[in-house]
Amino acid sequence: MVILSDWLAAQIDKTDAEPVYRQLLSLMQQAILSGRLAPGAKLPSSRTLAGDLGIARNTVLHVYDQLSAEGYVLSTTGSGTYVADTRPDTAAVGPRAPRATEDADAPAAPAAPAAPSSCPRGDMSVRGQRLIDEAGVSARQWGAFMPGVPDVAEFPARTWSRLQSRLWKSASHDLLTYAPGGGYRPLRRALSDYLRVARSVRCSPDQIIITTGIHQSIDLTVRLLADHGDRAWVEEPCYWGARSVLQASGIKLAPIPVDAEGLNPRDPDLRHPPRMALVTPSHQYPLGMVMSLARRRTLLEYARQHKVWIIEDDYDSEFRYGSRPLASLQGLDESDRVIYVGSLGKLLFPGLRIGYMVVPERLAATFRTAVAELYREGQLMQQAVLAEFIMDGYLTSHVRRMRTLYGERRQLLIDAVTRHFGDALPVMGDEAGLHFVLGLPESSDDREIAAAAYDAGVIVRPLASYYLGKQQRKGLLTGYACVPHENIDPAFATLARVIERHAFGKRAA
Amino acid sequence: MVILSDWLAAQIDKTDAEPVYRQLLSLMQQAILSGRLAPGAKLPSSRTLAGDLGIARNTVLHVYDQLSAEGYVLSTTGSGTYVADTRPDTAAVGPRAPRATEDADAPAAPAAPAAPSSCPRGDMSVRGQRLIDEAGVSARQWGAFMPGVPDVAEFPARTWSRLQSRLWKSASHDLLTYAPGGGYRPLRRALSDYLRVARSVRCSPDQIIITTGIHQSIDLTVRLLADHGDRAWVEEPCYWGARSVLQASGIKLAPIPVDAEGLNPRDPDLRHPPRMALVTPSHQYPLGMVMSLARRRTLLEYARQHKVWIIEDDYDSEFRYGSRPLASLQGLDESDRVIYVGSLGKLLFPGLRIGYMVVPERLAATFRTAVAELYREGQLMQQAVLAEFIMDGYLTSHVRRMRTLYGERRQLLIDAVTRHFGDALPVMGDEAGLHFVLGLPESSDDREIAAAAYDAGVIVRPLASYYLGKQQRKGLLTGYACVPHENIDPAFATLARVIERHAFGKRAA
Repeated sequence: MVILSDWLAAQIDKTDAEPVYRQLLSLMQQAILSGRLAPGAKLPSSRTLAGDLGIARNTVLHVYDQLSAEGYVLSTTGSGTYVADTRPDTAAVGPRAPRATEDADAPAAPAAPAAPSSCPRGDMSVRGQRLIDEAGVSARQWGAFMPGVPDVAEFPARTWSRLQSRLWKSASHDLLTYAPGGGYRPLRRALSDYLRVARSVRCSPDQIIITTGIHQSIDLTVRLLADHGDRAWVEEPCYWGARSVLQASGIKLAPIPVDAEGLNPRDPDLRHPPRMALVTPSHQYPLGMVMSLARRRTLLEYARQHKVWIIEDDYDSEFRYGSRPLASLQGLDESDRVIYVGSLGKLLFPGLRIGYMVVPERLAATFRTAVAELYREGQLMQQAVLAEFIMDGYLTSHVRRMRTLYGERRQLLIDAVTRHFGDALPVMGDEAGLHFVLGLPESSDDREIAAAAYDAGVIVRPLASYYLGKQQRKGLLTGYACVPHENIDPAFATLARVIERHAFGKRAA
Repeated sequence: MVILSDWLAAQIDKTDAEPVYRQLLSLMQQAILSGRLAPGAKLPSSRTLAGDLGIARNTVLHVYDQLSAEGYVLSTTGSGTYVADTRPDTAAVGPRAPRATEDADAPAAPAAPAAPSSCPRGDMSVRGQRLIDEAGVSARQWGAFMPGVPDVAEFPARTWSRLQSRLWKSASHDLLTYAPGGGYRPLRRALSDYLRVARSVRCSPDQIIITTGIHQSIDLTVRLLADHGDRAWVEEPCYWGARSVLQASGIKLAPIPVDAEGLNPRDPDLRHPPRMALVTPSHQYPLGMVMSLARRRTLLEYARQHKVWIIEDDYDSEFRYGSRPLASLQGLDESDRVIYVGSLGKLLFPGLRIGYMVVPERLAATFRTAVAELYREGQLMQQAVLAEFIMDGYLTSHVRRMRTLYGERRQLLIDAVTRHFGDALPVMGDEAGLHFVLGLPESSDDREIAAAAYDAGVIVRPLASYYLGKQQRKGLLTGYACVPHENIDPAFATLARVIERHAFGKRAA
């Protein structure tokens, strides 16, 4: 016991920022775990140890209490405190382990150690490794010409904050606890009104499910309606995030080409109906074309006949610069095969993380249960703020204002392209949204150009990242929405220099 | 054309709340989709139609523009507007469809219609149907004696709202857009400090990943570290939500019994190492025992040898009424096999939806990428509010205050149990947390009693819902945290009547 006190005294530093209590506790734990204090050993009395270490007896008593509570020691009233036997049960872990060497006297393992599915593997799962290898998410989320990001500096933060403060003043318990499946009722009502008018979606508030965004909406749909190994059609090219979500749930992707009229399945595709199809009919992501009415009707009819689920991702159709926004595919569907998904992130600010889905009436209760079961949703306070924001008309006026603003920025950027490149580089998919695709010569390497642009301080995304199979076009996704008017020309000048150097072999002047 | 005008005139109701523009657009679309207006038909000029219907010519012009934008009609300058051919491509959808009858003159199908994995099935997937069938989520989330829910009425909403308003005043773009992987840096620093001191977790801010809660933390872990078909040990009984999340990702569950010392794997379990094990060592959910130090060391050693991932769910250990909170399992782990998950929901308010995980250092970058890729996180504004709340000391003082308050409520409820039932009904797992288990006689049906209590206005959850295999004990999860002191006696009187009637066959007086 003298040895223990000496060892402890040598280790404890009373001038350290860490309280003596924590130091002593940690040292005693170490001593027991390492075997320095063997099972069954008796600890010195608290009075003795406190005296030896020159610390308050109460400190030692607290440490002994905590050691006892955590099972390191056993205290018997009257007879003192003993080190508990907490050594791992080597009979349980030792003999069967291939690498177990510490238990040499154990009998030979009576059974094979592992079933095939649980063979020692690497740290990661196969699906986890693929998710990381194919990850499309960008390290930077802001700056010229980040695609898909609205100008959050223009968001009416004051109005939002005012509504928020008012609601928090009367925060009731049902807004602070878990959400009932489906989300805040008044928000669902406000959204169904909005979607009926703005997007020709046919729905009642009951059919609306509030989620944290398009990723969660797709995830929920896939888990409820598709099994591991099922196939899904995705547009080629398509959004990397949707691909990752589908694959992480075990869905096999069948890339379907798009042409000027949108999704264009070929004969072999049609012969093998998938379980689901993920489409962006209003504004193909990333190329920007609109799915034609004939294609829409064909897809719906095919879905009806083959019981294919269609996920309609309607991610930014509010921002259409020429004509009015186009009607949704969901509004044409007579057979309840369409799950419509959208998000408020691109209209307001991405960090909000509120999205919505519209599901067929007969599945509404199922989706409500599942969203609560899988994700335990909450955030009703934010949903309430958003509901007020919509009902007071701020959403509509903000979208209207942004449409004008983004329209101007789009024009400035197109002008800059023309000024630098004439018509050598086509601008594609610029009728709507927050970005367009700047076409590059077939011979260029858009990944390399995007990487060089990134190093020069300009964010663009190469079309290459959106293809699952062979890349059909070269180009850069170029976002203008989050770039202040006056930054567009200088940022594009930088990008143009990179393009000239890499795509046309020109040297910087 | 006269027929069209007449039909339209008969349908349009100028006194309707819906604007004439929308009525006319919708009617024209219907007429085209139904074939009433055949492909190639010429529309009347806008002047003629406006005259026939007695409406403004501009209205008709806008409708024609929108029809043209959506592809219903084709406009040729000078020669008029014609109905486009938007009929579904029956060659694509018809001949191969088993139920296709409208295209009788098509040749016989040249190929089998569907691969086995995409045979017409029901609406739901197998996993979706199971998720719904086994859903544990409650329709009500508030009231005596809802387990697992803190008293949100005691949450310092004013302080929170004040911090929030201050932050929104200077909302910068990087707090409003997508989050970089892992979450808001100052929050991760504050949490790592908190977890080191309060939970003996060993971690740096880099190892902290902010999520929306324990469900998302488990989901992310499973997708990165386990594949479809892998096995996971779960405690028997265990939390329904964790079970649902694991199963929804294709994990097979192996229920492992618990005894007074926590998880107690038997020989056959040990012979087949799982890919992961989900445990609640500080306070077994739902029964409440603490995993002994020997079992902890055995589990860690087993995990090291067989490369088993351990998910430590440390959901409510801050509320421990007798001793200080116990150290985490993660703090004992020398081989980086533990993923530690926790949530702020039970400390503050469940609707907050901010949780955290602590991952081994070598996997931190992987988890940061994956959380951004799979979920596109945001909510940095809320994370910033929470960081301030913690750094200003409000979390610690709130937890301290709640521990006293919940301790009192726990005692009131135990007193009520004793007053009504003496020692006929044991109280289990009451040393910590927000609930205890009220044991019921072996002969009783806890599901039936919970249902009858629900009808009488009292929420309790039957132990039955937490067993995957054969139910070993009967009992009710009874939460006291969210019940004001004065409501405990009357609510328990109601519950006691239900128990007396159902478990002891007594009639109401």
